[in-house]
Amino acid sequence: MEQGSFKVLADGSVTTPKGFRAGGLHCGLKKTTRHDLGAIVCEVPATAAGVYTTNVFQAAPLQVTRESIGSDGVLRAVLVNSGNANACTGEQGEADAYEMRSRFAEAIGVSADQVAVASTGVIGENLKMDKVRSGIDGLPAKLDGGLAGAEDFCQAILTTDLVQKMVCVELMLDGQRVSIAGAAKGSGMIHPNMATMLGFVTTDAAIGSDELQTLLRQSTDLTFNMITVDGDTSTNDMLVAMASGLAGNQSLTPQHEGWAAFADALRYVCEVLAKAIARDGEGATKLVEVQVRGAESDESAQAIAKTVIGSSLVKSAVFGADANWGRIIAAVGRAGQPVNPATVDIRLGDIVTLEQSRPVAFDEDAALEYLKGDTVVIGVDLHMGSGSATAWGCDLTYDYVRINAAYRT
Amino acid sequence: MEQGSFKVLADGSVTTPKGFRAGGLHCGLKKTTRHDLGAIVCEVPATAAGVYTTNVFQAAPLQVTRESIGSDGVLRAVLVNSGNANACTGEQGEADAYEMRSRFAEAIGVSADQVAVASTGVIGENLKMDKVRSGIDGLPAKLDGGLAGAEDFCQAILTTDLVQKMVCVELMLDGQRVSIAGAAKGSGMIHPNMATMLGFVTTDAAIGSDELQTLLRQSTDLTFNMITVDGDTSTNDMLVAMASGLAGNQSLTPQHEGWAAFADALRYVCEVLAKAIARDGEGATKLVEVQVRGAESDESAQAIAKTVIGSSLVKSAVFGADANWGRIIAAVGRAGQPVNPATVDIRLGDIVTLEQSRPVAFDEDAALEYLKGDTVVIGVDLHMGSGSATAWGCDLTYDYVRINAAYRT
Repeated sequence: MEQGSFKVLADGSVTTPKGFRAGGLHCGLKKTTRHDLGAIVCEVPATAAGVYTTNVFQAAPLQVTRESIGSDGVLRAVLVNSGNANACTGEQGEADAYEMRSRFAEAIGVSADQVAVASTGVIGENLKMDKVRSGIDGLPAKLDGGLAGAEDFCQAILTTDLVQKMVCVELMLDGQRVSIAGAAKGSGMIHPNMATMLGFVTTDAAIGSDELQTLLRQSTDLTFNMITVDGDTSTNDMLVAMASGLAGNQSLTPQHEGWAAFADALRYVCEVLAKAIARDGEGATKLVEVQVRGAESDESAQAIAKTVIGSSLVKSAVFGADANWGRIIAAVGRAGQPVNPATVDIRLGDIVTLEQSRPVAFDEDAALEYLKGDTVVIGVDLHMGSGSATAWGCDLTYDYVRINAAYRT
Repeated sequence: MEQGSFKVLADGSVTTPKGFRAGGLHCGLKKTTRHDLGAIVCEVPATAAGVYTTNVFQAAPLQVTRESIGSDGVLRAVLVNSGNANACTGEQGEADAYEMRSRFAEAIGVSADQVAVASTGVIGENLKMDKVRSGIDGLPAKLDGGLAGAEDFCQAILTTDLVQKMVCVELMLDGQRVSIAGAAKGSGMIHPNMATMLGFVTTDAAIGSDELQTLLRQSTDLTFNMITVDGDTSTNDMLVAMASGLAGNQSLTPQHEGWAAFADALRYVCEVLAKAIARDGEGATKLVEVQVRGAESDESAQAIAKTVIGSSLVKSAVFGADANWGRIIAAVGRAGQPVNPATVDIRLGDIVTLEQSRPVAFDEDAALEYLKGDTVVIGVDLHMGSGSATAWGCDLTYDYVRINAAYRT
C-alpha cells in the first residue's frame, strides 16, 4: 500500500527497522496467562525522544525514563510491564522502577541510563517484585528480531485492550531504505493531554535526538493528542521513540530534503496507532472520527473536534445508531470556541443533516445503515475560516460500564 | 426541619409563596400520557430574574424569555413545554416561541412581555403547534394555588426524569412569613455552565429584580453550576425566579438585615433541586458528592471537584461499588489546577484510602458496603490552602447507555 511518499509494510513490526529485537513473557502480574513483561532492545545506541502525560500525578517509571532519555538522548532498550501501573506507590514505587531499570540493563549488558521503563495497569498497588525480577532475568532469552518477538512484546503491553496495535512503514532517504514502526496499547483512561497510553516507535533512520523529539511532539499533537476514549488522562501515558541510525541515510535535519517525507511517515505511524487505540477503546464497537472544517483556527477546530468526540451523549447515540445530530451541535456549542450559530453544517458520512444551522430532511434508513457500520465519520463545517482538525474516539456502550464497574475486583 | 435561619416546609410547593398558581396538562407533545405543558402564574406583577445556558446554540424560547425579563424585570407567568426543545429550529422555531408567549399572555389577560417561555426535549424538530395551541387554551382552567397544581406543573416539565423535583422553605423577614419554593427538571445533557436544565423559583418576598438577579446568580454558581450528569451542556438550560412581594417584608437589599438569611434560604432551595437533578441523572442509581478542601482557591477547588465528579471512570467505579481511588487521584491530577502531588488525602465517606498521597490500608468490605449505599461522598483534601467546593453527580450505569442509545427513536 502506497501512502504518499512512503509504503506501508503489511508484515512490518517494531523489529523491522534495522538493529531492533523485541520479546515478551508472562511473569505473573496479570491474572490471565497473557504476557505482562516485554522489551524492545537496540543493538547499537539509539537516539531517543519521549513525550509524557501532563497529569500532575506521574507514575514512578515516567521519572526513570525521563532521566534515562534526558541524560544523553540515547537508549538501548525499553522495558514494559502491564498489570500494574506503579503509580501513587511512593518511595517503594520509585525504588522498584529504578531496580527494574538497573536489573534489565545488567541482563543485556548496557548501562542503566540507557534503559527506559514503562508500566500500565492498576494504580496504587506496589509491584510484586519477585515476579518482576524473575521475568527480567528470563527476558533476554526471549528477544528476537522477527515478527514473533514483536508480537510477544505487543501482547505484553496490553491491559483491557482486545487487539494488538502495530504498524510499519518504509520510505527512501538518500537512496537508503528507511523504516519506521510503532506499537501501542490503550483502551481505558484515554484522553491524552500530550502523549497517550503507552506507545513505542522504532526506526533505523539516522536522526539526532533533538530532531526526533521535535518530530515526535508534532506527530503526537495531531494523532495521540486527538483521541479520547473516556476523557480521563492517565498517570502513565508515555510515548518513546528510538532511532538506530542503521539505515545509512544522512542524519535528518530540517534542511534534509527528506525531512518532510520522514515527518509525514512518522505522523502516519502515530495516526494508525492512535486510531487503533480509539477503535479498541474499552467496550467500543466502532471507531468514530470527527472532522471539523471552517473554524477560525486549527486550535479552535481541535478544541471543537475533541469536545464532540468526548460527548457521552454523542457516543451513546452512535452506539445506538441514532442520527441524533442535535447532540453534535450541542457539543459544538459548548466547546468554548468561536462559532457562528447560523452557519453550521453537519454530516454523518455523506449524509447531510444540518446546513447553515437548519435541519435538512435526510433518509433515516440510510443514516441508520451508515451508523451501524464499524467506522462513523462526523463532519462539522463552521464556514468561518480555514481552521481544521480531526479527532478520533469510539462509542459508549454497556461493555464500557461493565468493564469499569469492576476493574479492580 | 430547621436549617439555620429558615425552615423546610415538607408540604410546600411553588404555589406556597403568596400570589402563585400553577398547573399542567397533556397536550400531545410526549408519546406517553404524562403532562407536557405547564405554567406558573402570579396574580400580581412579580419581579423576575433569569440565568441561561452559555451554549452558543441557544434555543428559541431563551431569546423570548430574555426579552420578557429584560424589558422591565417583571413577569406574570412562565409557560413550559416538554417533549420538544424548540432548539435549532430556525425562524419557524422563533415564531413558534413568540406565538406561545402571546397566546398564553392573552389567555390569562396579561401583556406578552410579562410571560417567559421554556422548552425541553429533542433538538431540531419543529413544535407541533396545533397541539401546543389547544394546550395553551386549556391551561388557564387547570391552574390552582394548591399542591395539586404545583405537582401537575412539575410533571409537565419532565423528560427522562423519573421523579418530580420540588422544595419549599420559609423564613421570617420584618416579622413577616416569607417563603421561597423551587421546581426543576434535569436528567440528561446536564453539565450546567451557568444555569442548568429548567428551574423555576417562586417567592413572595419583596425584592427588586436586580437584587434577585444577584442572588440567583450567586446561588446558581454554588449549586446548579456544580452538578454534572454527563458533561454535556444543553442548549435550553434556564433558571427563572419570580418574586410576588406579597409577604409584606421591606424590599430586600444588601443593607437589609435579612439579606444574608434570604440568600442562604435561596441557595438551599437551589441546592436541593440541583442535588435532586444529580440523583435522578439518566440511569443513575445513586447521588455522588465530591468535597474538595485545602485547595489554593475556591475556584481551583471547584474545577477539581467538577473534574472528579465528571470522570466516567470514577462514575463507573461508584456504580460497581469499587473503591478505586486511583481513578479519583488521576482525575484530580488532570484538572489543570495547582496540586502538590505529595500531600493529597482521599476518603470515601469516613474511610480514608490515601493520606499524604500514600495508600492507606482500609477495610475493603466496609468500603464495598459504603459504596453500595444510595449516596456516596468522595472527600479530597489537598493541604495547600483554604479553597473548598462541593460538586454533585451520579454514577454511570448500563441504563445511561440504554436511555441514550435510543433517545430519538
